[in-house]
Amino acid sequence: MRYENLDKAPAFSSLCSAEPTDVKTALNAERIRTYTAQAGGGLSFNYAAMPVSAQTLGIFQQLCDQQQLIDKYRLILGGEVMNTGEKRKVLHHLLRMEKPAPELTKASEPEWAFYKEQLERVRVFASKIRSGEITGPTGRPFDTVCQIGIGGSDLGPRALYLALEGWCRAQGIPTLKGVFISNVDPDDAAKVLGSINPETTLFVLVSKSGTTLETLTNRDLVMSSLSPENRRRQLVAVTSQTSPLAHSEGVLDAFFIDDFIGGRFSATSAVGAVVLSCALSFDVFKAVLDGAREADRLALEPSVLKNAAMLHACINLYLRDVLNCPSRAVLPYSQALERFPAHLQQLLMESNGKSVSRDGQPVSYPTEPVIFGEPGTNGQHSFYQLLHQGTDIVPMDFIGFARSQRRIDVTIEGSTSQEKLVANLIAQIAAFALGKDDADPNRRFGGNRYSCLIHGKELSPQALGALLAHYENVTMFEGFLWNLNSFDQEGVQLGKKLAKKVLSGCEGDEVLLEYCRQMEN
Amino acid sequence: MRYENLDKAPAFSSLCSAEPTDVKTALNAERIRTYTAQAGGGLSFNYAAMPVSAQTLGIFQQLCDQQQLIDKYRLILGGEVMNTGEKRKVLHHLLRMEKPAPELTKASEPEWAFYKEQLERVRVFASKIRSGEITGPTGRPFDTVCQIGIGGSDLGPRALYLALEGWCRAQGIPTLKGVFISNVDPDDAAKVLGSINPETTLFVLVSKSGTTLETLTNRDLVMSSLSPENRRRQLVAVTSQTSPLAHSEGVLDAFFIDDFIGGRFSATSAVGAVVLSCALSFDVFKAVLDGAREADRLALEPSVLKNAAMLHACINLYLRDVLNCPSRAVLPYSQALERFPAHLQQLLMESNGKSVSRDGQPVSYPTEPVIFGEPGTNGQHSFYQLLHQGTDIVPMDFIGFARSQRRIDVTIEGSTSQEKLVANLIAQIAAFALGKDDADPNRRFGGNRYSCLIHGKELSPQALGALLAHYENVTMFEGFLWNLNSFDQEGVQLGKKLAKKVLSGCEGDEVLLEYCRQMEN
Repeated sequence: MRYENLDKAPAFSSLCSAEPTDVKTALNAERIRTYTAQAGGGLSFNYAAMPVSAQTLGIFQQLCDQQQLIDKYRLILGGEVMNTGEKRKVLHHLLRMEKPAPELTKASEPEWAFYKEQLERVRVFASKIRSGEITGPTGRPFDTVCQIGIGGSDLGPRALYLALEGWCRAQGIPTLKGVFISNVDPDDAAKVLGSINPETTLFVLVSKSGTTLETLTNRDLVMSSLSPENRRRQLVAVTSQTSPLAHSEGVLDAFFIDDFIGGRFSATSAVGAVVLSCALSFDVFKAVLDGAREADRLALEPSVLKNAAMLHACINLYLRDVLNCPSRAVLPYSQALERFPAHLQQLLMESNGKSVSRDGQPVSYPTEPVIFGEPGTNGQHSFYQLLHQGTDIVPMDFIGFARSQRRIDVTIEGSTSQEKLVANLIAQIAAFALGKDDADPNRRFGGNRYSCLIHGKELSPQALGALLAHYENVTMFEGFLWNLNSFDQEGVQLGKKLAKKVLSGCEGDEVLLEYCRQMEN
Repeated sequence: MRYENLDKAPAFSSLCSAEPTDVKTALNAERIRTYTAQAGGGLSFNYAAMPVSAQTLGIFQQLCDQQQLIDKYRLILGGEVMNTGEKRKVLHHLLRMEKPAPELTKASEPEWAFYKEQLERVRVFASKIRSGEITGPTGRPFDTVCQIGIGGSDLGPRALYLALEGWCRAQGIPTLKGVFISNVDPDDAAKVLGSINPETTLFVLVSKSGTTLETLTNRDLVMSSLSPENRRRQLVAVTSQTSPLAHSEGVLDAFFIDDFIGGRFSATSAVGAVVLSCALSFDVFKAVLDGAREADRLALEPSVLKNAAMLHACINLYLRDVLNCPSRAVLPYSQALERFPAHLQQLLMESNGKSVSRDGQPVSYPTEPVIFGEPGTNGQHSFYQLLHQGTDIVPMDFIGFARSQRRIDVTIEGSTSQEKLVANLIAQIAAFALGKDDADPNRRFGGNRYSCLIHGKELSPQALGALLAHYENVTMFEGFLWNLNSFDQEGVQLGKKLAKKVLSGCEGDEVLLEYCRQMEN
């Protein structure tokens, strides 16, 4: 396998000299019909409003071939140690495989069996929680699940829970309330604990290492509000088998992951499975896995035109490294996806926000841009002014669905709220792409503000699973293109180390000491 | 008054040739002690970890003088028509003045009296709601306030409510639950309505124009869930006196703002007053105004070293236009400020995300960057990897407080959660600024990742008011420096227009029609 920096790939030079398509003039019905690819779970990825042409797409194919994207994805599936920095396999795809495809996962059969076993244990456990076979400490059934975790143990599961809670209610699936404690700020736990009945709450403590400062602190904060004999009746752990939490006497049960599931890729592991299966049912979680698996399968397609995730990654690279766009917005026209942009912030920025290649050499090109976003139409009344008329081009990922989840709606002036939502989504894509001239420069819109659109019928569990896996695979392919190790996060270590130093009295460091003094004044 | 583009100011040329301070070597206790300014409400603005020197600060002063920042602020206070595009005064400062300072606000005395009158009406109304003198339609006292609004009628009030709810509880101030409906996505209203008891909920409908699509739609969606005779007993309006909502028979009461209060600057008007006074008490809202007033007063100081908002604006400009940083992160180490970055996103990006000067000429320099952020320590486990080791420098505004709001805490390994929170905040500033060398390039931290720190004893209503006004004034001063009109938002119009076109059947526009077809497939 060849691991070379992006600027070594001949196709990258071609890409740098390829003229960006003038979307303003090129966008028409034919282009919208044809610039589209399946993304799994009933989703489509439409890139008609991106500045690409048949020529650019051809170069993308060369680039993917030269950087051996599919081969590298197959190495991941086959259990190679692709997280080179930490010397680990990268097995989040294996979590959702129904059986280990022999040519792909031979080396990972033991892990596949392990993940399946854990998933089965979650299924059994969740059904006992939901049926009332396991009750809270006072004998009443659990009505709330509280996840205690941070980063990957929080953002993904929280985004998925919020995305599906309404869908489940509309489908008549009984739900337990899901709440999340993440921040070491004690006001976070205090607020959540003030909003629930601890007696009927199942606490799910999630930390792969079993040593995450925030999570252990919040566990103790939560436990201090419960009587000692109750603690073991309402706390479960999700951790690795070697962690200090794994065989603790003080828990009702424990579910396991391993080092091959990175935090930000762990939503489809036990990290997401326990809270989602207990709160929304195992069947719903299973459907998320089904959607993710379909997206993973599509990502194996060698033709970039048929591989939405690979194509999306190429477009992102073109926007970043050739057109020099320093940030990208994720704009879901779906309130249920309110925290999905926060999850993608971690997924993309933590995976690919790096300056050295996988073999530790500085790279000479920009890698991941800043990712941010809020649901539409809210964002329209907030930061879209800058997206339309600011001095930088900020490319956008729009996400939208034909139907709402809950189907509670009113018709006003001839259209439902859902129809208004979709109309706004379409209008924004067109406004950004096409612009509008005006005699008053303040009312002028330059156009060529690029966007893609991921769309589907409805935000179902399958669609959500595909959406999640699509972005995981975009992240992975970007990393291959940039020749990064997307699976470690050395950048978070220094801050942790210095925080310990502050807590132990600053060890005479005058900068730390003086900031401490300032904070006390 | 002189209104000239930034690049016409002689001091800007000096700034462009000023060497950025090497923070990595310059940061020491002395610098941390001296590079600080009062920001009101007990807050301090510390900029020791920003790449500025005595020389840069001197140039900032020249720049502020050349661009006449204080004179222009005084024009705003004096009631000049400073929103030139829309031909409106800009009077959000006047909302919090105790009396109209004669030299400043002569032309605006009628408006001052009007705002005061509305504030007094809110005070009386809120006390009746809170005492139970006004009850819900079934005779039970209100226990919930639901604000229906979007953009400025949502983000600011919501951020303030979330910031103070816990503080009030800890202080023993009775609270009503506050909830917010904003998105036209019908799943937003459905979710909120599913979480409250409509019989004991006061609905606050907020739209200055009385014509905001999302807000009217959500009003009707909410009203359809109430019996007709109840509607007028539990709906109040916040709007302008000329709006269709102003004298509607169907409401319990109406409170007024006018065209001189821009949406994103309206949190201290009736737009925020009604929901906050009803939910948290008028006294708490009054304390927010007190803090804001103090920050406004400090912003009149002509010396840039004593004017935190003006200095902050100059630093932002230096980072953006000289050091070419394309985005900025806002990182509150306070879970209560969880939605404050979303408010600042609107405030800064909608105000200054523009490409033409106030007289309508294209500007040749970058204006507002992308603003994003999440509370620490959550962000540390998410996107900080990119902030530490990504290929762009992303400057940061840290915000932190010595004490938690609720004071519910545990000591683990010798420190409380709050101490851990503060230790992490300080550690991050130092890690970003100083970096750390390492033989392994993957573990190398370059340093010179710039940040400032706004800090105080506790996130009280006064501190929050000052924080809010500080950023409003930063926004205003940035606009003066860039010679923008920060108070209009023409960039949001085109999308609205096209959305109407889509809803009326696309009028034969093939692009819109084809996107509609794609969404239906």
